[in-house]
Amino acid sequence: MKEELIKQIVEKVMENIEGCQENSIEIPVEVSARHIHLSKEHMEFLFDSEDQLKVLKELSQPGQFVYDKRVTLMGPKGVISNVAILGPARRDTQVEISYTDARTLGVNPPIRESGALENTEGLIIAAGVRAINLDQGVIIAKRHIHMTPKEAEALHVKDGQHVKVRIKSQRPVILEEVLVRVSEKYKLSMHIDHDEGNAAAYQTGTVGEIITKLRCSPPL
Amino acid sequence: MKEELIKQIVEKVMENIEGCQENSIEIPVEVSARHIHLSKEHMEFLFDSEDQLKVLKELSQPGQFVYDKRVTLMGPKGVISNVAILGPARRDTQVEISYTDARTLGVNPPIRESGALENTEGLIIAAGVRAINLDQGVIIAKRHIHMTPKEAEALHVKDGQHVKVRIKSQRPVILEEVLVRVSEKYKLSMHIDHDEGNAAAYQTGTVGEIITKLRCSPPL
Repeated sequence: MKEELIKQIVEKVMENIEGCQENSIEIPVEVSARHIHLSKEHMEFLFDSEDQLKVLKELSQPGQFVYDKRVTLMGPKGVISNVAILGPARRDTQVEISYTDARTLGVNPPIRESGALENTEGLIIAAGVRAINLDQGVIIAKRHIHMTPKEAEALHVKDGQHVKVRIKSQRPVILEEVLVRVSEKYKLSMHIDHDEGNAAAYQTGTVGEIITKLRCSPPL
Repeated sequence: MKEELIKQIVEKVMENIEGCQENSIEIPVEVSARHIHLSKEHMEFLFDSEDQLKVLKELSQPGQFVYDKRVTLMGPKGVISNVAILGPARRDTQVEISYTDARTLGVNPPIRESGALENTEGLIIAAGVRAINLDQGVIIAKRHIHMTPKEAEALHVKDGQHVKVRIKSQRPVILEEVLVRVSEKYKLSMHIDHDEGNAAAYQTGTVGEIITKLRCSPPL
């Protein structure tokens, strides 16, 4: 019993005091507004040809951008117009909205990682005088952090891991179960949706920090 | 140095292991939709007389209720209709909205405790063919927990204290700086707004728990 107690004491002490360092790298936070990724086929159906769409703006993740055209989403209960189309084209059309949007549209999307579209609802996607009856593809994007392998190493996290992130703001919240996504192609940035941003009183420039156990070096 | 270290170790151990108990009382969480509290004067102006308003539904806090009439809010950028009026009448008219609503209306409310309306913006409140130019009173309600003195004692918290609350849901978040409000008239319930509810994937029946340091009894 005493030995177990001592072991626990040593662990707690190592976690908490003297010579231990916190992960204090600040992560830029971005709020992802509702948007759609279109398949090449759907792009061609709505706009005749992919060439009709031009790049309007580059996004923070290298190679990602917003097109200059917009679509309208129609659900059983309501309509949301002026929805951004992100590029490049994807294999499957994917609609990313918030709970607030879901209520407006009258759809019931699950929280999913990008690309995991099985057993999701669809809706109507319209542009000009053309409409697509999307069978599936409406999700609430699971909050996540993009980072390079080097950044992952510095933050002591791995691809696919879930972490807690404290959003430092006027109305601070700790978001649990935040997915870590690591790739050489990424740039350090946390993506949350408008509901999460509003809950944390997000403003441009708001940052987050991963909450981890303290790391001691050298051990006591 | 060693003495200080030992003191810290003892503290950490007492906080963390053996014979220590967590606060595990579950707190019912309610999402407050946008609403307005009207002064008697404004009620009479909009509806001729307070008697024109009937109680539609009692709320969770004893003595609080929703009236059977609604108002429309108009800001510089947009309009939100069908806004609930909560009773009884207050000394000052107070509009409680979310960041999402604030953006729709084009107003910039601060996060405030109920009743703290100095230096806040106003907007137009309309009902039927009457409108009030409210000078001030638009706030985003600071998240809070109502409880009785007995519940406060059981939870080891005091009136006016701020606590962290973990919302237990499919998309868990820890809300920091949650105000504790204690009164014999209250019933245990945490109030958050729609943004906070959506961020936590709130559903009817969702509960929260206060995150506190562990308490040891008897001390080691």
